[in-house]
Amino acid sequence: MTPATQAAHYTDLVSMARKSWTLGSIAALVSWDQETYMPEGGAAARAEQSSLIARLAHEEHTHDRRGELIAECEGDAELMQDGTETAACVREMRRDYDLATKLPSDLVAALAKAQSETQEIWKHAREKDDFKSFAPALENVLSLTREKAQCYGVPAGGELYDALLNEYEPGATAKEIEAVFTPLGERLSALIADITANGTPPAIDFLYRSIPTEKQHAFGRTVTAAFGFDYNKGRLDTTTHPFCSGFGAGDTRMTTRYSETNFPDAIGSTMHECGHGLYEQGLPKEGEHCGTPLAEAVSLGIHESQSRMWENMVGRSRAFWSWALPEAKKTFGTVIDDVDLDMMVKGMNTCTPSFIRVESDEPTYNLHVMLRFGIERALMSGDLSVNDLPDAWNARFKELLGLDVPNDAQGCMQDVHWSFGLVGYFPTYTLGNLYAAQFWETINEQIPDLDEQIARGDFASLLAWCRTNIHQHGRRYSASELCMRATGKELSADPLLRHLESRVKPAYGM
Amino acid sequence: MTPATQAAHYTDLVSMARKSWTLGSIAALVSWDQETYMPEGGAAARAEQSSLIARLAHEEHTHDRRGELIAECEGDAELMQDGTETAACVREMRRDYDLATKLPSDLVAALAKAQSETQEIWKHAREKDDFKSFAPALENVLSLTREKAQCYGVPAGGELYDALLNEYEPGATAKEIEAVFTPLGERLSALIADITANGTPPAIDFLYRSIPTEKQHAFGRTVTAAFGFDYNKGRLDTTTHPFCSGFGAGDTRMTTRYSETNFPDAIGSTMHECGHGLYEQGLPKEGEHCGTPLAEAVSLGIHESQSRMWENMVGRSRAFWSWALPEAKKTFGTVIDDVDLDMMVKGMNTCTPSFIRVESDEPTYNLHVMLRFGIERALMSGDLSVNDLPDAWNARFKELLGLDVPNDAQGCMQDVHWSFGLVGYFPTYTLGNLYAAQFWETINEQIPDLDEQIARGDFASLLAWCRTNIHQHGRRYSASELCMRATGKELSADPLLRHLESRVKPAYGM
Repeated sequence: MTPATQAAHYTDLVSMARKSWTLGSIAALVSWDQETYMPEGGAAARAEQSSLIARLAHEEHTHDRRGELIAECEGDAELMQDGTETAACVREMRRDYDLATKLPSDLVAALAKAQSETQEIWKHAREKDDFKSFAPALENVLSLTREKAQCYGVPAGGELYDALLNEYEPGATAKEIEAVFTPLGERLSALIADITANGTPPAIDFLYRSIPTEKQHAFGRTVTAAFGFDYNKGRLDTTTHPFCSGFGAGDTRMTTRYSETNFPDAIGSTMHECGHGLYEQGLPKEGEHCGTPLAEAVSLGIHESQSRMWENMVGRSRAFWSWALPEAKKTFGTVIDDVDLDMMVKGMNTCTPSFIRVESDEPTYNLHVMLRFGIERALMSGDLSVNDLPDAWNARFKELLGLDVPNDAQGCMQDVHWSFGLVGYFPTYTLGNLYAAQFWETINEQIPDLDEQIARGDFASLLAWCRTNIHQHGRRYSASELCMRATGKELSADPLLRHLESRVKPAYGM
Repeated sequence: MTPATQAAHYTDLVSMARKSWTLGSIAALVSWDQETYMPEGGAAARAEQSSLIARLAHEEHTHDRRGELIAECEGDAELMQDGTETAACVREMRRDYDLATKLPSDLVAALAKAQSETQEIWKHAREKDDFKSFAPALENVLSLTREKAQCYGVPAGGELYDALLNEYEPGATAKEIEAVFTPLGERLSALIADITANGTPPAIDFLYRSIPTEKQHAFGRTVTAAFGFDYNKGRLDTTTHPFCSGFGAGDTRMTTRYSETNFPDAIGSTMHECGHGLYEQGLPKEGEHCGTPLAEAVSLGIHESQSRMWENMVGRSRAFWSWALPEAKKTFGTVIDDVDLDMMVKGMNTCTPSFIRVESDEPTYNLHVMLRFGIERALMSGDLSVNDLPDAWNARFKELLGLDVPNDAQGCMQDVHWSFGLVGYFPTYTLGNLYAAQFWETINEQIPDLDEQIARGDFASLLAWCRTNIHQHGRRYSASELCMRATGKELSADPLLRHLESRVKPAYGM
């Protein structure tokens, strides 16, 4: 694929893609700033800015000329040869174009404006635990989201929810996800029951000692720099809800959050976002692929597999803490001098139902996802109304996690996602865990001394495996193809269950 | 002016203006981020983003429909009634449209890209004092700037430089500025000679004591909050070159810079940018005027009058330090315990030629501006080539300020302006000083106890005067009309000379 020999319809198509990609990167900056540094008074003007840039991007995505060029490329047998980068690129551009042209630009602008406004309302409502002040704005975003799903169109034999899911995890359906989640949930419940009956809970008090946030930030920088995140090409800032956003080659922005009395939460969030950041930095965004699907992440599930792998498979392992605990002691000072490796690893691998998803432990996290999957599916089908959301949440929470939710701030208002109209997004978190565990088994087979490398703070082979098998491909292969190429197997729940058992049981002395 | 009764051509014109204003506010954010938080590796992608957003804004500014609507409004006698807001709004939109349509969009995009790239090159070249690595990029920006001036067109009897000047200070010409600057320069030289011969230099060593930048930042926050800057609607960050950017109602971003061993520099920069910030926060950006010239600053000279007034007329006064010195002592700790009010006020009013414009004292600052005015005028006319710039700078510096420039980092590479193609911009700084001094005399006549108010940290009447006489009018009146309405007189050099003498002579015991 040398640009000089490419047909004009292909190079023109790539130029158009690059322009809309640049608009998208500006939109990402506008949104990042809103979360990090924008003063409170800027919200109204920001909503106008977000709305305008979204409308301009949508106009580009849906330009008639783009449709014509895609059709011309599809008719070019040389470009479309099986297995070539150009064929993959045109295939993915077709997918994006079809998705984008189904949405009228007024709806896109209305959604962007509603997202920006609802997010501000959510911040205040959550602070005050006031669901009623949040409900009308949420109802508005969800109604626009339902409209969006209708525009995408319900697949044959499917439901409204599938139309949204397809945006984040191409090809996935609610029924298929239910079919994996149900047995996963049952086996997880059995594991939790076993641990509760037969295990000895590890000490965890030491995890909540007071550590100044600057020291936690310094430790997070040390760990993520060791993982391989290039800080000449990125940043780490602080927000209410951590996220990672790639603005193009050389500019990847991660955010995290800090609590003085919960350093494992901060370092977990930081390692999680770093997994996303390493994927963004590893995509081939420089040069000829810039702005094309070949420089983009394949799906949210695969993106999440990268964040989960660094957060959990690496970040809760004995090998990792063999290196990281001495580093933490250097940075934190005397406050954790008495903590030994065994305490640390056990403390990082607890299994205790709790209220907040992003603070939950690795096994129960999946139950939080299942809860949201069921709720949002019902909100879309109309089986559940926004006003009944808190009751439905609390009832289902009790069933799945056995706890009484004390208030909506710790219940159905804890996440920002629905304020953004992100419906169909949550299940990708557990898909990410499933992919991560399956990749992890393969990596350990292919790099037999990985534990030794990690124990000396050397993450280069691990990152190289991810670059080679995942990052460099962009959207060339589908998520399931990528999984098959990298691991030789279809996605299965077994590696995740094996991984969780191998980590949790020893922590409970089993 | 009630929107319900307005003609469609006017409301449509305002809608168009609002869209291009929103694009401009996004461009301002993109640029602010580049200066504050963008990682180094993001420069190439950022140049693409800046270029695209500038091209889109230019397309909006130069849209044929806008020209048609302006013409329709100009033909509407009711809208154009003398002295109305609508007439002023249409007049200023015509000015902007005529300026914008003279530039082809390719040139606008090329300039934006060159600015972004040259600015990065300048940063590194200045660090390494390497003018040669900077010269080709500067030559490119200046050549595009010359092209821009040609597109604007040279006014009858004027020169290429006037075409650029008109962008920042509508109606001003190089000859007129020369006619004010020459006597101002002579009288300033006489003042400096008098002080050198007959004055006793005040102690200034104490101004360079080491004070941690966090403490300087806290003091800057205290002072600017007291001035009336609303931090719910703005921020203060750190950059190499301080600036202020208004992103719309409720979002004004100031930046400053800190040196551990030069707190007057930081507080001076902070008060200066705060003057700009107060103007931005005082413009009527909310409601019907949003996005129109009625919500914009009238000229750079007037903008600078606001920054200079708070930095110099307020910030170097005995009244101000009566309040601010105890505040500084509270914040800085014991390091300036021995400094009394007399020392402080004298130290803030020195008059000593030095190398760096933004670190120079209040009187000699104007000589730095005159130097740049002469150099950039010659660069535009072709009398001076970029390669000869360092020599020309150093020679003229010796004439005006009597010093030998030690290197280009402290010489012709000290400012970012030319990297941005900002030619015709520097003279507005001294125009700002002239306007500020003239406003200041009137304010003190109209608020006889202003010194007492300031001495107790009360800046409310002063800010209210600025809001009423300057800020609220946007571009309704020209700079000279605004000056006449506010002070009853045409702009003159006398108030500035009187002000400087009244401050500097007592500091030198004269």
